[in-house]
Amino acid sequence: MSSSDIFIGETIGTAILILLGGGVCAAVTLKASKARNAGWLAITFGWGFAVLTAVYTSAPLSGAHLNPAVTVAIAIKDNDWSNVPTYLAGQFLGAAIGAALVWVAYYGQFHAHLTDKEIVGGPGAQATAAKAVEAQEKGAGPVLGIFSTGPEIRNVVQNLLTEIIGTVVLVLAILTQGLNNNGDGLGPIGALIVALVVVSIGLSLGGPTGYAINPARDLGPRIVHALLPLPNKGGSDWGYAWIPVVGPLIGAAIAAGIYNVAFA
Amino acid sequence: MSSSDIFIGETIGTAILILLGGGVCAAVTLKASKARNAGWLAITFGWGFAVLTAVYTSAPLSGAHLNPAVTVAIAIKDNDWSNVPTYLAGQFLGAAIGAALVWVAYYGQFHAHLTDKEIVGGPGAQATAAKAVEAQEKGAGPVLGIFSTGPEIRNVVQNLLTEIIGTVVLVLAILTQGLNNNGDGLGPIGALIVALVVVSIGLSLGGPTGYAINPARDLGPRIVHALLPLPNKGGSDWGYAWIPVVGPLIGAAIAAGIYNVAFA
Amino acid sequence: MSSSDIFIGETIGTAILILLGGGVCAAVTLKASKARNAGWLAITFGWGFAVLTAVYTSAPLSGAHLNPAVTVAIAIKDNDWSNVPTYLAGQFLGAAIGAALVWVAYYGQFHAHLTDKEIVGGPGAQATAAKAVEAQEKGAGPVLGIFSTGPEIRNVVQNLLTEIIGTVVLVLAILTQGLNNNGDGLGPIGALIVALVVVSIGLSLGGPTGYAINPARDLGPRIVHALLPLPNKGGSDWGYAWIPVVGPLIGAAIAAGIYNVAFA
Amino acid sequence: MSSSDIFIGETIGTAILILLGGGVCAAVTLKASKARNAGWLAITFGWGFAVLTAVYTSAPLSGAHLNPAVTVAIAIKDNDWSNVPTYLAGQFLGAAIGAALVWVAYYGQFHAHLTDKEIVGGPGAQATAAKAVEAQEKGAGPVLGIFSTGPEIRNVVQNLLTEIIGTVVLVLAILTQGLNNNGDGLGPIGALIVALVVVSIGLSLGGPTGYAINPARDLGPRIVHALLPLPNKGGSDWGYAWIPVVGPLIGAAIAAGIYNVAFA
Repeated sequence: MSSSDIFIGETIGTAILILLGGGVCAAVTLKASKARNAGWLAITFGWGFAVLTAVYTSAPLSGAHLNPAVTVAIAIKDNDWSNVPTYLAGQFLGAAIGAALVWVAYYGQFHAHLTDKEIVGGPGAQATAAKAVEAQEKGAGPVLGIFSTGPEIRNVVQNLLTEIIGTVVLVLAILTQGLNNNGDGLGPIGALIVALVVVSIGLSLGGPTGYAINPARDLGPRIVHALLPLPNKGGSDWGYAWIPVVGPLIGAAIAAGIYNVAFA
Repeated sequence: MSSSDIFIGETIGTAILILLGGGVCAAVTLKASKARNAGWLAITFGWGFAVLTAVYTSAPLSGAHLNPAVTVAIAIKDNDWSNVPTYLAGQFLGAAIGAALVWVAYYGQFHAHLTDKEIVGGPGAQATAAKAVEAQEKGAGPVLGIFSTGPEIRNVVQNLLTEIIGTVVLVLAILTQGLNNNGDGLGPIGALIVALVVVSIGLSLGGPTGYAINPARDLGPRIVHALLPLPNKGGSDWGYAWIPVVGPLIGAAIAAGIYNVAFA
Repeated sequence: MSSSDIFIGETIGTAILILLGGGVCAAVTLKASKARNAGWLAITFGWGFAVLTAVYTSAPLSGAHLNPAVTVAIAIKDNDWSNVPTYLAGQFLGAAIGAALVWVAYYGQFHAHLTDKEIVGGPGAQATAAKAVEAQEKGAGPVLGIFSTGPEIRNVVQNLLTEIIGTVVLVLAILTQGLNNNGDGLGPIGALIVALVVVSIGLSLGGPTGYAINPARDLGPRIVHALLPLPNKGGSDWGYAWIPVVGPLIGAAIAAGIYNVAFA
Repeated sequence: MSSSDIFIGETIGTAILILLGGGVCAAVTLKASKARNAGWLAITFGWGFAVLTAVYTSAPLSGAHLNPAVTVAIAIKDNDWSNVPTYLAGQFLGAAIGAALVWVAYYGQFHAHLTDKEIVGGPGAQATAAKAVEAQEKGAGPVLGIFSTGPEIRNVVQNLLTEIIGTVVLVLAILTQGLNNNGDGLGPIGALIVALVVVSIGLSLGGPTGYAINPARDLGPRIVHALLPLPNKGGSDWGYAWIPVVGPLIGAAIAAGIYNVAFA
C-alpha cells in the first residue's frame, strides 16, 4: 500500500465511520428526527454497521484501521512504525470531516433542537448555574454526545479502566483475524465480524462511558463540536477529553502484549 | 446478461424490494397490523432485509442494481450507458408493482386505518384547514409514508444534501465491492453486506428525510399512491417528489467521481 | 440422500424450527417469562434464527426443506415427486414434536398464565359471551398464537393473498440459491440468508396474518394445541386452519412457475 | 493443539464471553448505565455477540469450546476424554476472570445501584423479611442476575428440562458443523452461526430460566458474586446453582447421543 492510498483510505473510511456513527446519535437525540428515542439498540447497531460500511469501503485502499488504537497495536505486534503517522493523519482528518457531515445532514434538526425553549431553556435560562445544569441535561449535553463520549459517573480510574477493557477486547479480536483457519482478513466476512464485535462491546461495555475505544472517534469530533457555530451548544467537556485518547492507547498496548505472548 | 434478463431481473427484484420495504412501513403504521408501532429499528432492518431478499433473488438475472442511482454510477464508472434504459425501465415498473402488492397484502388494514374516525377524522373532518392538517398528521400523512419519503423539516437545501450524502455512502460501498480481496461481488455475502449498509444508512442518516437514496423507490410508489382508490388518502406531496429523484442522482455522480479518483 | 436420512433430518429440523419459533411466541406472551412483551422485533428475529438453527442442523441429512411449500416448489421445479411423501411426513411429525417441546419448556408459564384470573377471567368468566371474548383477547387467544397463526382482520381473500405473497417471496429466494455465483446452497451462508429472508417476510408481510408461509408450521402445532391438556385454552380456530395450508401451497406453485419461466 | 494453548485459549475466550455476557446484563440492569432498561433484545443479542467475540478470538488457540457442555459432548462423540480436564480448568478460570472484569468495568454503577435507598431500601431495610424480599426484587436480585441465572418459576423438573432442551439445541448445532458442505468449522462463518444460534436460544427458550446452557457461565460467576465486596448484594442462591450445571451436562449427553445415532 502506498502512503497516499493509506492516507486517502483512512480519511474516507474514518469520515464514513464518524458520519454514520455520529449520525445515529443525532438521529436518536435530536428533535424532528424520525428516529428520535429509538433507543440503545439503535445506537449500538448503528455504530456497528458504521464500522462495517467504513471498513468495507476503505479496506481495499488502506486496510481500514480507522482507529489509532488499531494502528498502534499492529505497529507493536509487527514492530514497524513507519506508516503510523500517515494512518493517524488520515484518521483524525477523516473524523473531523465525518463530524462536519453529521452537522450538514442534520442541520435543521440541530437548529430546531438547540433553539427549542423547552429543551435548552428560554431567554436568560443560561444565566443561573442551576438552569445551566438543567439545560445541559435536557439539550446541550446530549448534543455534545453526538460528537464525543462522556461518563455517566465521573471517576477517572473507572472511566479509564472501562475504556481500556473495551479496547483490549476490540484489538484482540482484530489481531487474531489472521489466525482464523478460513480467515479472510478484512474481506467482507472479516469486516462483518469486526462490526458485530463493536456492537457487542457497545451493548456490553458501553454503559459507563459510551465506549470511545478509539481516540480519533472521540477527539476529532470534539474539536469539531468546539468549532461549529451551534447555538446554545454548551462546553466541549475538555476535562474528560484525555481519557478516551489515553485509555484506548493503553488498551491497544495491553492487547498487543497478550497477543505476542499467547497467540504469536 | 441479455436485455430481457436485465429487464426481468430488475422488475422482479425491485418489486420484491418495494413490496418488503413498503410492507414494513405498512406493518408498523396501519391499524390492525400485528407489527403496529414496532419502531424505527423494525423499519430500518425491514428495509435492509428487503434489499437482501431482492438482491439475492434478482442478482443471477440482472446483477441486482434495483436503484437508478446505482445504475447511473456504474455507467459513469464504466463509461457505458448502453443498458441504462433497460435497467431504469425494469426498476420503475418493478417499484410500481411492489407498491401495488403492499396494497393487496394490507388491503383490510389500509381500509380500517383510513376509515377510522379517530385516525382520519369524522364526516366533514376534512372541511376545515386545521382539521385537514390534524388528519394528515394522524392518518393520511403516515399512509403516504408507506409509499414515499418525506422530510421532517422542509428545507430544500438540507433535504437535498441529506439525500446526496446518504447516496454517496451507499454507492461508494457498492462500487468498492469488486476490490475487496475476497470480494464475491453480489454473491450471498456481497448481498448481505449491502443490506447491512442500507440498515446503517437508515439508522444514521434516515432521521431528516426518511432516506430514499433511490429514485425508483420513491417515485414509483408515489405514482401508485396517486392512482390507488384509497379513501381519505390525502395528497401525494408532489412538491417534494423531485428531491428524492435528483438528490440520489447527484450522489451517484459524486460517488462515481470519488471512486474514479481515489480507488480506480 | 436416503429416505431415512430425509425423514430423520426433516423431523429433527422441523422440531427445532417449531420449538424455537413457538418458543419465542411463548417467551413474549406468557406470564412469568423474562421476555414478556419483548415485542415484534423479538418475534421476527426469533423465528428467523429458529430457521437458521433448524436449517443449519438438519441440512446435512435432508437438505432442510422444513416446509411443505418448499418441498412442493422443488418438486415442481425438478418435476420429481418421489421423495415428497417422506419430506411431508417428517415435517408434520417434527412440527408436532416441536410444539410439544414448547409446552414442556414453558410448562409453568402456560399454567400460571392460563389460570391467572386477571388474564383469563375468574370462575364463571367464560359463562357469558362478552366475557369469553374478553378472556380470548387477553389470554387464551394469544396462547393459541403460540402454536398457530391467525388474522387480525378476518377476510378469506385478503388472508389467502397475504399468505400467497409471503410464500412467493420465500420460495423464490430459496429456488434462486443455486444460481448465485458463489452460491453454497444450504451451507452456512445459504442458511443465514434464508433465515434473514424469513425475518424480512415477518417484518414486512407479517402484520395481517402472522406469516405462516408454511403449512406444517401452522397445522402441526394447531393439532397439538387441540390435544394438550391446557386449562382455559379456548378453541383452536379450525375455521381458519385451511388458509395457512392452502395459501403457502398456492404460493409455492406460483414461485416455481415464475422460476421456470424467468430464471431457468 | 498443545495443552497450554487449550488452557490459555479457553481462559481468554471464556473470560471474554463472561465479560461481555455479564456486561450486557450489568448494562441493562444497573443505575447510571447508558443502556439501562434496553430490554430483552439487547440481552439476547449481547450474549450472542459475546459468543461471537469470544469464539472468534480464542478459536485459533483452543477451538473455542468455552462451555463444559460442548467439551463433554465432543468427548462423548469422539470417545476421547484426554483434554477434558484442561478445557474445564480454563473455562472455569476464565469465567471467574470475566465476572471480576464486569465488576471493574461497572464499578461505580454497582456501587450507585446497591447503595441507592430507593433501589435496595434505606438503613435497616433488610431488617424485616418483607423488606428483604422487596429489596431483593428491586435491587439485589437483578444484581445476582448479572452473574448467574435464576428461574422465574421455581420448579426443579421444569427448570432442569428447560436447560436440557436449550443445551440439546446448542450442542446439536455445534456438532453438525463439521458436516455442512461448505463447513468451515469454527472459522469466522461458523463462529457467526453459533453466535446467532445462541441469540435464538435466548429469544426462544430463555424466558423461564435465563438460559445458562453452560455450567461454567453460571457457576464461575456465582462464586465470584459470593466473593466480591458488593454492598447489600444479597445471597447467591446456592439452592438453584446445581440446575444450570447438571441440566446442560444432561443436554450435552443427549445431543451427543442423537448425533451418534442420526448424523454420524
